[in-house]
Amino acid sequence: MQLFYNPYIDHNTQQITFDKIESRHIVKVLRKKEGDEVFITNGKGLLFVSQIDIASDKKCLATIIRKEEKENERNYRLHVAIAPTKNIERLEWFLEKATEIGIDEITPILTQNSERKVIKKERLEKIIQSAMKQSLKFHLPKLNELITFNEFLNQESSENIYIAHCYDGKKELMKEVVEPKQEVTILIGPEGDFSPQEVSKSENANYTPISLGEARLRTETAALVAVQNVAFINQ
Amino acid sequence: MQLFYNPYIDHNTQQITFDKIESRHIVKVLRKKEGDEVFITNGKGLLFVSQIDIASDKKCLATIIRKEEKENERNYRLHVAIAPTKNIERLEWFLEKATEIGIDEITPILTQNSERKVIKKERLEKIIQSAMKQSLKFHLPKLNELITFNEFLNQESSENIYIAHCYDGKKELMKEVVEPKQEVTILIGPEGDFSPQEVSKSENANYTPISLGEARLRTETAALVAVQNVAFINQ
Repeated sequence: MQLFYNPYIDHNTQQITFDKIESRHIVKVLRKKEGDEVFITNGKGLLFVSQIDIASDKKCLATIIRKEEKENERNYRLHVAIAPTKNIERLEWFLEKATEIGIDEITPILTQNSERKVIKKERLEKIIQSAMKQSLKFHLPKLNELITFNEFLNQESSENIYIAHCYDGKKELMKEVVEPKQEVTILIGPEGDFSPQEVSKSENANYTPISLGEARLRTETAALVAVQNVAFINQ
Repeated sequence: MQLFYNPYIDHNTQQITFDKIESRHIVKVLRKKEGDEVFITNGKGLLFVSQIDIASDKKCLATIIRKEEKENERNYRLHVAIAPTKNIERLEWFLEKATEIGIDEITPILTQNSERKVIKKERLEKIIQSAMKQSLKFHLPKLNELITFNEFLNQESSENIYIAHCYDGKKELMKEVVEPKQEVTILIGPEGDFSPQEVSKSENANYTPISLGEARLRTETAALVAVQNVAFINQ
């Protein structure tokens, strides 16, 4: 099954037009003809089954013949705030893998030791969309705007909030503190880690410091390990 | 700490010569001078502390002044046999990440649905070496030659052997069957999964079929999830 993504279709949509790239893909690669079915999600939990009216490789047209509400397959909610990596490919890899495994929200954060201070949000969103389609999911993870660490601390207010850092001191292993079926938020620092001031600020904001284990992990690996740990705890 | 890798040094080595690339890195990037310390591992659990005798950017020379035996930080042994991905970068990512998290042995396997039938072993080894140095590990994961699925089944004889596949039928969740402090071997199939014949052959060879959860994962993601699950179970 090949899944397409279109954020603009909803319960009222009856007909759908594919853009040039999608149309070419449908006609030239998938070799679909008039009357064939094409599957589309709006990334908000709806799967639309459509039937091709016009199989043009420039502008494919289809009528929606059926729709299905798809519940989120996960019984938890996960939000990761991560300092974008200096080499953006590493963050991109994280976004792809986290989408496959299961994540709801990602906030890029600007920290004291951040070497990367800008991101191309649209490009990152495309990666998340591809991974969602590839892994046949119907809920698109939300990518937020880049904000500062302080802004993030001020806005976040869920109950299960964790910060992963590499300093010594009292830290809990994730497996000891994260419980299933919860709403969880995890902060992941940049290559140079959070600053001691950031760690202490987060503790004042009631974040629990956690350890991901003994291994020395890169930023994007740490973030993915955290995502998989939450998935594992919820199995 | 910057760690160098040299497989040829052992307990008897007294002096070490760095190659051109390493020498340039030591002198030009790390700006080391005569008398400064440089750290080297042989990937077999030994850390050598050396002192620079000649800080030449073409051929750096150092004398070993101290050595430390580094025990493996893990109390388990993990061997992953994986069908190389069509896009080799995906396998490379897996090798890097698995080395960071913790793995002992990797065997690339040729399966019925494998689209990639050759690998450049030397290039893959370089990636593993980089990841080992980066994550300050002193044990180099072993990368075996590419062999066929059948050859692998015939040679492998450890006790805790698992195959991850996507077919329906009786499968165990990893968290239900993998125990800590064990020697574990896990088979991961190609993009098109193992063939039904391969699955049944593995069952005859006493492999336990496992599920990695509900999510639909790419080959390299499945492999990494398996690696992190074993790490988590051993925490």
